[in-house]
Amino acid sequence: MICANITRTADGALRFGGADVAVLTEKYGSPLYIMDEARIRENCRTYKNAMAEAFGPAALPLYASKAASFKQIYRIMMEEGMGVDIVSSGELYTAAAVGFPMHKAYFHSNNKTDADIAYGIDCGMGHFVVDNVEELDAIDRIAGARNKIQPVLLRMTPGIDPHTYAAVSTGQVDSKFGSAIETGQAEEITRHALTCQHLRLDGFHCHVGSQVFDSDVYLRAADIMLHFVAEMRDKLGFVTTELDLGGGYGVRYTENDPIINIGANIHQVAAAVKSLCAALKLDVPVIRMEPGRSIVADAGLTVYTVGTVKRIPGYKNYVSVDGGMTDNPRFALYGSKYTVVPVSRTLPETVMRCSVVGRCCESGDIIQENVLMPADIRRGEKIAVLTTGAYNYAMSSNYNRVPRLPIVMVNKNGDYLAVRRETPADVAQYDV
Amino acid sequence: MICANITRTADGALRFGGADVAVLTEKYGSPLYIMDEARIRENCRTYKNAMAEAFGPAALPLYASKAASFKQIYRIMMEEGMGVDIVSSGELYTAAAVGFPMHKAYFHSNNKTDADIAYGIDCGMGHFVVDNVEELDAIDRIAGARNKIQPVLLRMTPGIDPHTYAAVSTGQVDSKFGSAIETGQAEEITRHALTCQHLRLDGFHCHVGSQVFDSDVYLRAADIMLHFVAEMRDKLGFVTTELDLGGGYGVRYTENDPIINIGANIHQVAAAVKSLCAALKLDVPVIRMEPGRSIVADAGLTVYTVGTVKRIPGYKNYVSVDGGMTDNPRFALYGSKYTVVPVSRTLPETVMRCSVVGRCCESGDIIQENVLMPADIRRGEKIAVLTTGAYNYAMSSNYNRVPRLPIVMVNKNGDYLAVRRETPADVAQYDV
Repeated sequence: MICANITRTADGALRFGGADVAVLTEKYGSPLYIMDEARIRENCRTYKNAMAEAFGPAALPLYASKAASFKQIYRIMMEEGMGVDIVSSGELYTAAAVGFPMHKAYFHSNNKTDADIAYGIDCGMGHFVVDNVEELDAIDRIAGARNKIQPVLLRMTPGIDPHTYAAVSTGQVDSKFGSAIETGQAEEITRHALTCQHLRLDGFHCHVGSQVFDSDVYLRAADIMLHFVAEMRDKLGFVTTELDLGGGYGVRYTENDPIINIGANIHQVAAAVKSLCAALKLDVPVIRMEPGRSIVADAGLTVYTVGTVKRIPGYKNYVSVDGGMTDNPRFALYGSKYTVVPVSRTLPETVMRCSVVGRCCESGDIIQENVLMPADIRRGEKIAVLTTGAYNYAMSSNYNRVPRLPIVMVNKNGDYLAVRRETPADVAQYDV
Repeated sequence: MICANITRTADGALRFGGADVAVLTEKYGSPLYIMDEARIRENCRTYKNAMAEAFGPAALPLYASKAASFKQIYRIMMEEGMGVDIVSSGELYTAAAVGFPMHKAYFHSNNKTDADIAYGIDCGMGHFVVDNVEELDAIDRIAGARNKIQPVLLRMTPGIDPHTYAAVSTGQVDSKFGSAIETGQAEEITRHALTCQHLRLDGFHCHVGSQVFDSDVYLRAADIMLHFVAEMRDKLGFVTTELDLGGGYGVRYTENDPIINIGANIHQVAAAVKSLCAALKLDVPVIRMEPGRSIVADAGLTVYTVGTVKRIPGYKNYVSVDGGMTDNPRFALYGSKYTVVPVSRTLPETVMRCSVVGRCCESGDIIQENVLMPADIRRGEKIAVLTTGAYNYAMSSNYNRVPRLPIVMVNKNGDYLAVRRETPADVAQYDV
């Protein structure tokens, strides 16, 4: 299968992270997110070990928790010694609730409110990744009112389009994020930051996009950023001690996606960074990366129960399931590819091509098109959508007042609930 | 402005449903949904009165509550004597919680689970709008176990593409919804329904899509459906007593959208229905329509506070606000058009063209592109997005763990909270 943690028993039963998917669904109900704790930890270690080896022990991956933010994920990150990238007071609240060490947290977002900033400073936020001048001034003012010096990085746009889908591509000059190096605005905000009395500027951040398969992208980003670092040293005398390259590598949603050797890629980036630093006569800054998707995506899958099988002669076949765009809006938003498989049997000889669709009253509520399913599939059969650990739970909604799914975590000791299932009463709890 | 309930005072202050938008935002915080109760009631009456006049007193519009489902909206529908279309146990729970008379409720969805069906029957659901054979059998079985006879309509696809956006277009043969007349599957399910001992088949439903501006669409749908009604009488001796034409007319998101005379359109459909019934020697069935968007869309707006104004020379300008795709995913999903205006002043002479974007860490988090804003707009200024009463709150999410907005309702007596604001602790409440 597309990831080593997905296997089948001899009689065709799907296993995920060592657990029987059908048995878990019987226990926790359908639909259901299942996450594989060992795979999450393994993905963390892949980044952490490679970065430590390649860049030295101070280098640290930050888990981009917008991919999947809930208490247990911050506990796991804490145990794995990861940093975290958080993007809102809500993510910060969740990390703080489990005692995440905030000096290892980085507060992102193109638009932090004054309330976000105050909350972040009061929680002891390690760094703010400052997007713009308004925010820079607000952090300076709010830190000043508390008589604190707040460490910050500045977010720059290096002018790279990694050719991923536009909605997840963030490194080009024309972006709502950061300050462009090309237009001189990056230099301008750096000058401004150095005048702020309650900020300590440690360096720069860039993020060229998500789901990157082309290793060249990070080499180009590092090249542009290090030249900028050298320019700021030469022009302003500013010494960069920390450089955050953002990102994270692509994950496999289908068999057609390439397998990325993350360790080898990181070593390649490190070699380029060290060589360029030598050429530019720079001390190698402490390096950060921000994998999110590649930490949790292949550590998750979603189980659904089939409700309706509709064969429209001369048109198409539809298999409707008991979830949909409410728990996975990524096909509706981006046309994202996913692999869909039966839970209790391998694909038989006689198959049918179909669209797997959700239960929402909306034609766009599609999980995946052109899926091969058993020709005799019918109401009650369970199917699984693979690689749903990132941006599924995180982006889920109560559209149609459909309650959100629980997350069940599996590990070598068994299974446990990480997020409980909502009820209709939960959904209506804010109604007056 | 695009709807009569939006006005400006002489000094430029935006008023909505008679209330001062800036004052409400001061009182309830930003960002904020505001809804105009009088406009909701007026929209209900437009449909209800026109249908009663045109089709007779038994005709009834059903509010398609997926457009905006919360307790107070069902109270208003109850007071206005509307029926409701509900699509899930969650919507049913909410309607039941305020005592909505369930004999006036219709349970839709392409994929009702057995649990949904049992809950619906136990609540005294007026009609199930049955999508498919699996569901028909399940309702028959579950009603039988309770010794009940459940009234149903059958959902048919008339084979009409109303040329609206694909994701909201549902009347064509190739659809996850209903049974196609063209393929003979509509006749097949009708024959099957008539053999079910615990069902009472009252008639048929079709839905040709949302945001329909072309009055011809309903005439064509009625024509096809009535011919089918006559065919079922001739072939099966089945007398249709109820015909649900679905839908609802288009609303104005921008000045470029046409103004629909809903009353005149309904009279036109009624004339065609009566004339065709006479020609086909049919008693005119009781008619249902299902407006959702056109009941609530122009009764809502969203207020945001500007955080960042980014001008990228040679590229584009970005105005970031304190909400985004979390409270209005419709641009991200469909590229939907909206009108965006300043709250405290009319547009000055000196303007800038910009993208209004949200606070999520995602480039696709856009509220609207090509918006004209005051050239001197800056952090703290309030702006309003108009016509957000439908499919904004309903589709909202906690992506980035951003808490969802409250809905404040205004009427002639003042203002009140209909849905309270979430907190970060609310968002994390299901985390174990």
